[in-house]
Amino acid sequence: MFKINENYLKLPGSYLFSAIGKKVNAYSAAHPDKKIIRLGIGDVTQPLAPAIIEALHGAVDEMGKAETFRGYAPDLGYEFLRNAIAENDYRARGCDIHADEIFVSDGAKCDAGNIQEIFSLDNRIAVCDPVYPVYVDSNVMAGRTGTYDNIAETWSNVIYMPCTEENDFAPEFPKETPDLIYLCFPNNPTGAAITRQRLQEWVDYANRVGAVIIYDAAYEAYISEEKIPHSIYECEGAKACAIELRSFSKNAGFTGVRLGFTVVPKELRCGDVSLHALWARRHGTKYNGAPYLVQRAGEAVYSEAGRIQLKEQVAYYMNNARYIYDGLKEAGYTVSGGVNAPYIWLKAPCGMTSWEFFDCLLEQVNVVGTPGSGFGPSGETYFRLTAFGSYENTVEAMERIKGLEL
Amino acid sequence: MFKINENYLKLPGSYLFSAIGKKVNAYSAAHPDKKIIRLGIGDVTQPLAPAIIEALHGAVDEMGKAETFRGYAPDLGYEFLRNAIAENDYRARGCDIHADEIFVSDGAKCDAGNIQEIFSLDNRIAVCDPVYPVYVDSNVMAGRTGTYDNIAETWSNVIYMPCTEENDFAPEFPKETPDLIYLCFPNNPTGAAITRQRLQEWVDYANRVGAVIIYDAAYEAYISEEKIPHSIYECEGAKACAIELRSFSKNAGFTGVRLGFTVVPKELRCGDVSLHALWARRHGTKYNGAPYLVQRAGEAVYSEAGRIQLKEQVAYYMNNARYIYDGLKEAGYTVSGGVNAPYIWLKAPCGMTSWEFFDCLLEQVNVVGTPGSGFGPSGETYFRLTAFGSYENTVEAMERIKGLEL
Repeated sequence: MFKINENYLKLPGSYLFSAIGKKVNAYSAAHPDKKIIRLGIGDVTQPLAPAIIEALHGAVDEMGKAETFRGYAPDLGYEFLRNAIAENDYRARGCDIHADEIFVSDGAKCDAGNIQEIFSLDNRIAVCDPVYPVYVDSNVMAGRTGTYDNIAETWSNVIYMPCTEENDFAPEFPKETPDLIYLCFPNNPTGAAITRQRLQEWVDYANRVGAVIIYDAAYEAYISEEKIPHSIYECEGAKACAIELRSFSKNAGFTGVRLGFTVVPKELRCGDVSLHALWARRHGTKYNGAPYLVQRAGEAVYSEAGRIQLKEQVAYYMNNARYIYDGLKEAGYTVSGGVNAPYIWLKAPCGMTSWEFFDCLLEQVNVVGTPGSGFGPSGETYFRLTAFGSYENTVEAMERIKGLEL
Repeated sequence: MFKINENYLKLPGSYLFSAIGKKVNAYSAAHPDKKIIRLGIGDVTQPLAPAIIEALHGAVDEMGKAETFRGYAPDLGYEFLRNAIAENDYRARGCDIHADEIFVSDGAKCDAGNIQEIFSLDNRIAVCDPVYPVYVDSNVMAGRTGTYDNIAETWSNVIYMPCTEENDFAPEFPKETPDLIYLCFPNNPTGAAITRQRLQEWVDYANRVGAVIIYDAAYEAYISEEKIPHSIYECEGAKACAIELRSFSKNAGFTGVRLGFTVVPKELRCGDVSLHALWARRHGTKYNGAPYLVQRAGEAVYSEAGRIQLKEQVAYYMNNARYIYDGLKEAGYTVSGGVNAPYIWLKAPCGMTSWEFFDCLLEQVNVVGTPGSGFGPSGETYFRLTAFGSYENTVEAMERIKGLEL
């Protein structure tokens, strides 16, 4: 008789954003007349930039002709895209990353969930708390996290690194030694960034204790301060200890287009085993490449026109971020983030829990945010708003929040 | 100190098609003047049908406008596509499968590789031998297959079900009881099909012993005989024991577009746990949906124009299949497949091994096929040719093969 993977049953509740979606849909069904403004899930709202639309149309036409039709993509992705990434995201910033160390995928979420597969089941993970739920959940599914404590809302075998006001939302080195360290900067959900100097300390720490850093840089396009690194490979020694995840979702509005990539440097080894070879094997065996169309769209992100248009798009969202940040400050909220990231992190008012404030905002003013507790125990009493709405909706949402009767 | 997933190191050699690719590239680099004809990897060559191109252009335009832009897709896929699948692939064939039992993905290879995750690590798998390598390899990576015997080229904890001339390439019930049974019909690589009556016996067997059948129906569009089922859900009781994998790669030429789906019926349970809920959880946590563009392209597959155009495309490839089949017969080869599948399965001549014949074809006549041994020990001395080339290339390849000096 077949049996299931019991680890799945340990997962408490459903995936955070599915849970929010269900709650919003239920409210919406009960109140069809209400206009709900969604600043919850980090989903973009601006249309694809003209340079990307043009590249997509061109690639569609190629697929319609026998001479230019493309079937299966190369395992690691098309060279035209990997070269553009290596040149623009790495060499232009002084990072010595080569095209053949880049694995093109259908998004950073998949890579973030799948990367743990190439590591031993008895490796111990460390995560920031609060944090994007995929890191922990994918390790729960694999059986790496021990047992769940319903009261503390923590896993017995996960090292939590609290990120709170006290440490300016930047984690300290953990007391216990981890094997895998998930770092995400600029951070989801807190919007906090890490300085180059502090990230260098993390790289040195990982190399010293023999840990791998899985560095999620999905929000790097939103960095506005010079002291903040865009890639972990700006730090010396990172190629010996770090894997970097990148996404096109937020810098180019690809949440519905699906494109990302993972960098596994060839120097990164465990004894004589290359992690690059392991990830290549996973890619070759369990994945079949991102669509040709989408890879051409990714290439257009790096074109001259694409870069100008996307800089404007990022500026548009960051203008929203400032608007939210300033508005909340004015209204007396405790607020952070929003300077190097499209997320604003605020303290729920009046001693409310995260979900209480979620319900309050949804029911009283029809604004959807994300409860901080969904990202980990240290997120309790916090709340995330995103800058990814339209400017008009952002302004209206802030009017509503300011008028909230608490 | 971090450790790697040691199971990866157990995998012998590289993924079959990567290995072939490397060999062909090396030959090609050494002989740049030779025109190589590829009938190896099952990659399509005909351009996307006009109805699909039109749908793609339309969806690209939508993504360029704020009012019609789409971000993250719904977890299971867009309803417009899931409804079209439920209606056309299932209800039209009398299968009671609902849209919310369909999980849209970026291809059957990913689903075939990932589906094992929702099962216990001590489940025992049974596979046809020879078989598409992803089923076994993904279970090796998970640690479910025991140790590898280099001589026999088998795994100690895998139940092999030989498919040879003796049993007309259809597996018999195994002596040991499996937990998970991978069946692929029409078969890759042998091109053999299974009758509805025989598949019903498999469904009854699975229900009796408490096994789950993972049914890969990626080639169902190539079925030409009435007695051959297109879906396992044509069999009574299949909803209680079977998961079905489907692909748009071969019926619509989507190898470079990436779209597939998996059906997990709500009836399929392990005690009180619904496998549908487990797969939904995996989808929600480690996947982020197929691109909107691609899902619209998938919808067009079911449009009136799309159906007519794709019927022609399948007929084009099946004409190649017949050409290869007849040509090999004439030339004295022992050959099967090609009637309900785009694959032709032949016995390597003159007592050659699979790879010997591969090298012989590549070097003497510059034709690439796939060595049968790459699909399992019972594939040794066999060879696969695909009908997915152009007609002109297929004709030329057959001329060359007929002229081979053995």
